[in-house]
Amino acid sequence: MNLMLLIAVASAESWNPTGAEWQDFQKRAGTSRDRIYARLVELCDGAGHRLAGSPGQRRAEEISAGWLKADGVKVSLDPVQVPVWIRGEASLVLVSPRQESLALLALGGSVATPEAGVEAPVVIIRDFAELGPHVKGKIVLYNHPMVEGVPSIEHYGPAVAYRGGGASKAAAHGAVAVLVRSVTTRSLYTPHTGGLSYDQALPKLPAAAITVEDADRLSRLAARGEVRVRLRMTPTTAPDAPAVNVIGELTGATRPDEIIVVGGHLDSWDVGQGAHDDGAGVVESVEALRLIAARGRPARTIRVVLFANEENGLRGGKAYFAAHGKERHVAAVESDLGGGSPLGWGVTASAAQMAWIEPLLVGSGMRLHDKGGGADISPLTEDGVLAIGLRPDDSHYFDVHHTWADTVDKVDPVALAESTGALAALLWQMANAPDAPPKAPPRHD
Amino acid sequence: MNLMLLIAVASAESWNPTGAEWQDFQKRAGTSRDRIYARLVELCDGAGHRLAGSPGQRRAEEISAGWLKADGVKVSLDPVQVPVWIRGEASLVLVSPRQESLALLALGGSVATPEAGVEAPVVIIRDFAELGPHVKGKIVLYNHPMVEGVPSIEHYGPAVAYRGGGASKAAAHGAVAVLVRSVTTRSLYTPHTGGLSYDQALPKLPAAAITVEDADRLSRLAARGEVRVRLRMTPTTAPDAPAVNVIGELTGATRPDEIIVVGGHLDSWDVGQGAHDDGAGVVESVEALRLIAARGRPARTIRVVLFANEENGLRGGKAYFAAHGKERHVAAVESDLGGGSPLGWGVTASAAQMAWIEPLLVGSGMRLHDKGGGADISPLTEDGVLAIGLRPDDSHYFDVHHTWADTVDKVDPVALAESTGALAALLWQMANAPDAPPKAPPRHD
Repeated sequence: MNLMLLIAVASAESWNPTGAEWQDFQKRAGTSRDRIYARLVELCDGAGHRLAGSPGQRRAEEISAGWLKADGVKVSLDPVQVPVWIRGEASLVLVSPRQESLALLALGGSVATPEAGVEAPVVIIRDFAELGPHVKGKIVLYNHPMVEGVPSIEHYGPAVAYRGGGASKAAAHGAVAVLVRSVTTRSLYTPHTGGLSYDQALPKLPAAAITVEDADRLSRLAARGEVRVRLRMTPTTAPDAPAVNVIGELTGATRPDEIIVVGGHLDSWDVGQGAHDDGAGVVESVEALRLIAARGRPARTIRVVLFANEENGLRGGKAYFAAHGKERHVAAVESDLGGGSPLGWGVTASAAQMAWIEPLLVGSGMRLHDKGGGADISPLTEDGVLAIGLRPDDSHYFDVHHTWADTVDKVDPVALAESTGALAALLWQMANAPDAPPKAPPRHD
Repeated sequence: MNLMLLIAVASAESWNPTGAEWQDFQKRAGTSRDRIYARLVELCDGAGHRLAGSPGQRRAEEISAGWLKADGVKVSLDPVQVPVWIRGEASLVLVSPRQESLALLALGGSVATPEAGVEAPVVIIRDFAELGPHVKGKIVLYNHPMVEGVPSIEHYGPAVAYRGGGASKAAAHGAVAVLVRSVTTRSLYTPHTGGLSYDQALPKLPAAAITVEDADRLSRLAARGEVRVRLRMTPTTAPDAPAVNVIGELTGATRPDEIIVVGGHLDSWDVGQGAHDDGAGVVESVEALRLIAARGRPARTIRVVLFANEENGLRGGKAYFAAHGKERHVAAVESDLGGGSPLGWGVTASAAQMAWIEPLLVGSGMRLHDKGGGADISPLTEDGVLAIGLRPDDSHYFDVHHTWADTVDKVDPVALAESTGALAALLWQMANAPDAPPKAPPRHD
């Protein structure tokens, strides 16, 4: 082997960081598998569901801050004022063609019905284009199915549009309440909640999710004659409450002012245990930092941020940006698509940022997706920071997303450890890589 | 080809009825696929769930009798007095280590709790052998998982023993109430009801099923400290009510007194739509008879029996036997394992019966299982009649069994048509086969 060839090999190694680091952190994570999973169990069983402002959220803050302290990481608790929405009671009764009770979950942020409920005929809407004057005085049922296919996240947007914006679009045509088919492709008579946003210029309609089964059944019944239902819900919104972003930092050895953020959100919807959404991202982030600290201090600072509020307000990400947005963020990484095996990375990057990060990501052996990041880190992303979202196997994520079934038993310990290892290897290499590119110009997409 | 060879071929055909008949009825069923499925939809949407004595059961009687009349079949409605159990309300609250509501379904036939409910510590029991004096004054939680594997029915028995007999076994040791892990291997926080039977010599404890998720969670919590729950249920038992076995008969052309019974049960538990359990068996039976009648009149009589009450009392099968047990039954066939693709036959037969039926069943290309039949036809089976149970693909049957999720969307129209065709081909050949063997001696197993 001549000298030129040796140089070429060395150079290829330094620019193509495949193999060794990824394998090393997979080994470390594999050895820690039981410990990683035990923390997810502790969070899920110990805190339970943890909607912003709830006792569960406070328990989750204590548990996760306790982990970081136990791991010898510098902990800070950044105050965040979070919205407080309280579900109250809900019932949905099929009145005609015959009396029956149907399962439902009020959508997060929904207003209440009048005390006696709202009773009206149901109009089936499969696509927003079908809305019209005929929905006036009626209860709109959006029955727009989520398409089955992997990655599932790519089919989420077209379906969730009805949950997020359907109430106001129906209000614009004079409807009196809204039901939405749950956003999932698999159901065992399982309603899925999730947030809605109201157009402030329009009446706010009470809105709830029903099961896939009932959405289809009511659609069949409506094709044969009038279907009437009575919806009654008593959600309330209380004044904002104090919460915290839980932050753990491993200060960089030689470039402490260059920060790499990794995180997920501590809050969940007020059902189930928020195991996949986003207990997994929280635990992966904390454990990735622990694995890194056990190996040594990297050049740059790695900061775990457990955001206080993603599901209904994004107050955690906004508060983080307000407090820390002016610091030098080299990259922000989020895990908020469940605890599946790591399959890919979603990347939002300028050309310079991409040139810096791409060889490393390609080296992971995982698939690269154009665009990505996460809701919590979106204020950083919009400000031009390189953003990376972990893309795990999400083929069963939406089975349990925002339901009572998002419980710790649904997360596979092997997959959780694999994603932890992938995050750790990514963070380690980013924290030690040669000079990083600057922020991109602000993004608004 | 010489004469001897022709005879041999003809003889082989008459003794080895493979191929043609099975294929013919699969074609006929395939052509009827939409119609078959439409009837299942009509039953499920039109009647809804249909516990014995409920309005749903009366609607199911009307719908199914209407089908038989429309098909030109002789219909009779045999009176059956059925038990009436009314679910009432139920709640289960985790009191300690913190307050939470848990999903539950009272077990069918359970007594009520006192009006204020029963509050006590929970004792986890994984196996009956663990019962002992330490459960006195406690609420027993049976957390015995169903094993995953196909055929699923083979793993049902060991798990359902806790649902069926657990209340009295716990009562024998002084427990005050019973919770049972739902009998399933897959759950989206899905409680499964089902019947229990009390030992009349012991106190009757209120008993309910909880989800797999909560059974495991309470077990984890109980390993760390005291778990207390409060169970409140208000089921009642009303006086027996009148119902009917719906019977449709295609009288045999040449052996009208030799009867072949085929059926399923019209009743269901009082949740979901009873689509797999046992709407599928009901529709398959009715449609198999229609396919046969369209082909011609067979030698023997084929009698569809839609039994009034299987889930909580077996009154339908007992009433049928009381009224018709002395008639000459050549065979009884039941479909009560859901609407999956036909994979096999479970057979209870004497040696002579087996010699008669085996070549035909082998010719179906489906697997033969020793023992089988069905609960509704069990009085006939016990009396010595050849009994055959359809064994469909049941790999997802227990996902929805006895739950709100047993809805028509869970049944695949292709599979339902295939099982209908298999039943029709079996019945046609049995009804036209050479001399059938007599009943076996009474069986008591």
